[in-house]
Amino acid sequence: MERIQVAEELSFSRIIHGLWRLADWNYSDDKVLELIEHNLDKGITTFDHADIYGDYTCEALFGRALAKKPELRNKMEIVTKCGIVLPSKNRPENHTHHYNTSQQHIIQSVEQSLINLQTDYLDTLLIHRPDPMMDPAEVAAAFSRLHKDGKVRTFGVSNFKRHHFEMLQSYLEVPLVTNQVEVSTYHLENIQDGTLDFCLEKRIAPMAWSPLAGGKVFQGKEEKAVRVRNTLEKVRREIGAEDIDEVMYAWLLKHPSRIMPIVGSGNVERIDRAVRSLDYTLNHDQWFEILQSSMGHDIP
Amino acid sequence: MERIQVAEELSFSRIIHGLWRLADWNYSDDKVLELIEHNLDKGITTFDHADIYGDYTCEALFGRALAKKPELRNKMEIVTKCGIVLPSKNRPENHTHHYNTSQQHIIQSVEQSLINLQTDYLDTLLIHRPDPMMDPAEVAAAFSRLHKDGKVRTFGVSNFKRHHFEMLQSYLEVPLVTNQVEVSTYHLENIQDGTLDFCLEKRIAPMAWSPLAGGKVFQGKEEKAVRVRNTLEKVRREIGAEDIDEVMYAWLLKHPSRIMPIVGSGNVERIDRAVRSLDYTLNHDQWFEILQSSMGHDIP
Amino acid sequence: MERIQVAEELSFSRIIHGLWRLADWNYSDDKVLELIEHNLDKGITTFDHADIYGDYTCEALFGRALAKKPELRNKMEIVTKCGIVLPSKNRPENHTHHYNTSQQHIIQSVEQSLINLQTDYLDTLLIHRPDPMMDPAEVAAAFSRLHKDGKVRTFGVSNFKRHHFEMLQSYLEVPLVTNQVEVSTYHLENIQDGTLDFCLEKRIAPMAWSPLAGGKVFQGKEEKAVRVRNTLEKVRREIGAEDIDEVMYAWLLKHPSRIMPIVGSGNVERIDRAVRSLDYTLNHDQWFEILQSSMGHDIP
Repeated sequence: MERIQVAEELSFSRIIHGLWRLADWNYSDDKVLELIEHNLDKGITTFDHADIYGDYTCEALFGRALAKKPELRNKMEIVTKCGIVLPSKNRPENHTHHYNTSQQHIIQSVEQSLINLQTDYLDTLLIHRPDPMMDPAEVAAAFSRLHKDGKVRTFGVSNFKRHHFEMLQSYLEVPLVTNQVEVSTYHLENIQDGTLDFCLEKRIAPMAWSPLAGGKVFQGKEEKAVRVRNTLEKVRREIGAEDIDEVMYAWLLKHPSRIMPIVGSGNVERIDRAVRSLDYTLNHDQWFEILQSSMGHDIP
Repeated sequence: MERIQVAEELSFSRIIHGLWRLADWNYSDDKVLELIEHNLDKGITTFDHADIYGDYTCEALFGRALAKKPELRNKMEIVTKCGIVLPSKNRPENHTHHYNTSQQHIIQSVEQSLINLQTDYLDTLLIHRPDPMMDPAEVAAAFSRLHKDGKVRTFGVSNFKRHHFEMLQSYLEVPLVTNQVEVSTYHLENIQDGTLDFCLEKRIAPMAWSPLAGGKVFQGKEEKAVRVRNTLEKVRREIGAEDIDEVMYAWLLKHPSRIMPIVGSGNVERIDRAVRSLDYTLNHDQWFEILQSSMGHDIP
Repeated sequence: MERIQVAEELSFSRIIHGLWRLADWNYSDDKVLELIEHNLDKGITTFDHADIYGDYTCEALFGRALAKKPELRNKMEIVTKCGIVLPSKNRPENHTHHYNTSQQHIIQSVEQSLINLQTDYLDTLLIHRPDPMMDPAEVAAAFSRLHKDGKVRTFGVSNFKRHHFEMLQSYLEVPLVTNQVEVSTYHLENIQDGTLDFCLEKRIAPMAWSPLAGGKVFQGKEEKAVRVRNTLEKVRREIGAEDIDEVMYAWLLKHPSRIMPIVGSGNVERIDRAVRSLDYTLNHDQWFEILQSSMGHDIP
């Protein structure tokens, strides 16, 4: 599988596996391990986590599977996130939903993630959301410490707009390596507001969450969903794909910013279709037809 | 006429002539040549084209006139654009309306423009619209090749916001020389969203398309059109201008970003009024009265 | 009181006193002097003016009080602004409400401010509003002249967005030292649109006007006002503050951009409460509860 060089000594697989629903799948540790190995076989070596996924449980479910074959660790890249605080039965000390990007919180969160994931290091740590109360000097201190201690190799952000990114970057010694944003045929905001342009400008490849728009396109009854679905279906027939999810991935993959879609499924057939989408290339007509079906009007 | 230095060895006339309606005028080649010579006499030496104008026909109409007096070529600056693809009986290979800023498309488009315009070189090539699928490395490669081959002297953009401009610029070896945007007493978007501020920051002078708002101000019945028209009429009387189009041009000319209005008329009297607008200077009261009539409310 | 270093040789008190309502208080010169001395005693050494405050009268009211004890001048920092032109019985030559940031206007305005304030120099001059017609070269020339003549020590802006700031800064020889913007628990725009992030990026501390939202939170009947007031009241009880204005100040003071709130009251008890707010520290839960009560919805 194509790989994206995100830092001098770190590359991600073009297709990334996302574990945010891992707790919902009710998989045994063996079944999780099987899934991990399937992904690695297919060339999907990058796994996307967050401290809060599954009410703070997903990282540990993954870690338990990994512990059964620790030799897989150096065949994969682990990404996780911190910065959101959620009230949860698993975190009785949390009272309200808020963000916390203080030095102390970031370090504690990473240390817990390492325990959960049963690993000594993270390949990449992302700040999960732009925090209106973020003290960039605190974030910089936390990153610096975690890097020196060998706990985190590289750092990035998620859901950041240009101004958040430039501000934080100006306090850091090392370049942020990615920005994980929502982008799909259905959700164009980051294409339209300059966020992906900024990634291109900074030579960083974005990760895409919800690349299939969380099912909206498959089942949605609203006009936009129907419009996009029909166009995807038309293009699917033209390129001979099996399902419209392949078209949705292919649409993202054609964007010059080198989007890395995060596949959030625990179903190997769906994962395989995501991998197969790398073989399809949309032409300009098809790419813009899909864009305009999502915009709901012609381009100027 | 005042000239604007857009690059080290290239200047434009402050007033530019736009040919996007040339096909509608049904002028003979001699009549077009007459119009060109009238403009040159008045100091309007810069001519604005695009591949798509007149359903891909305007460039060639201009070229046929120019071919009758090829010695005029080095007395003028020719600007044209590419990047939009339109279905057209003149381009049967085009299926849908989309953008194409690939290296191949840009180069082919310029080569066709040179044939149409019956010239060996363009003074400036503009990317017509920000393309959400633009690969800046492809654009950079196209520009580099066209420049080395002597086919295009300088490059710019049109309808770009700051993030489009900075992204593309970061891939280019030479500075973009202009940004052609819609701006008029009626259309304030690029004044209000920072696009003209960014031109000032980058020391590039913008070109203004639709400086008369496409007739909306002259005939419009909506509240805004009436309001702006009445204010322009008041100011016209104050400064002793003949028609409100002169006030609309003078309003643009007073802006510190050194806006170069594109006059899109084939009528010499209207063109002459545009030239005459250079002689009027609005005062602060007048400039802000017009601004506020267009905004529909007081400034803060 | 904590001080904020705004330039190499200039610091402001964290709490600033604003004089925009000075004319409304109908204070005798002695009473104004008393207020000034009260502020200085409390550590509030920075005073915020504008040419236009009180219909062009406030600066002179302050100046008359200062003239009674000129030795206070070097114990305080005086900030004033220019750039807005208002029709006024005190300025019969003004015809319309507009902005004027020409070299001539800026210099004349400062010279009048110096006379009004009965001082030889301003510590900081701010451009009051982003002027859509601002010629940055004119502003730069005015600043340069005023600085060379010893009339103004440092320069800043007010109500500027990032694009205004970067554009103007690119023409200046010295860094702008602050951006005075509206920000409060009720008015989040500058927190949400990146303006405060930009201040952090540029290492400049913003001044906050209307830090109490001009009374809206105290008396407002609209849903948002009630919601914010109730949350402030809850937090007030939690931290043991006397009034919700202390909570509103503490909320601003916790922001990492080092906001300097401008207290616009002539009432010493209210001023003292602002000073006392420096002793309270909100926790993350409290800060975000207030934020969300103002947003009207949960953070993502």
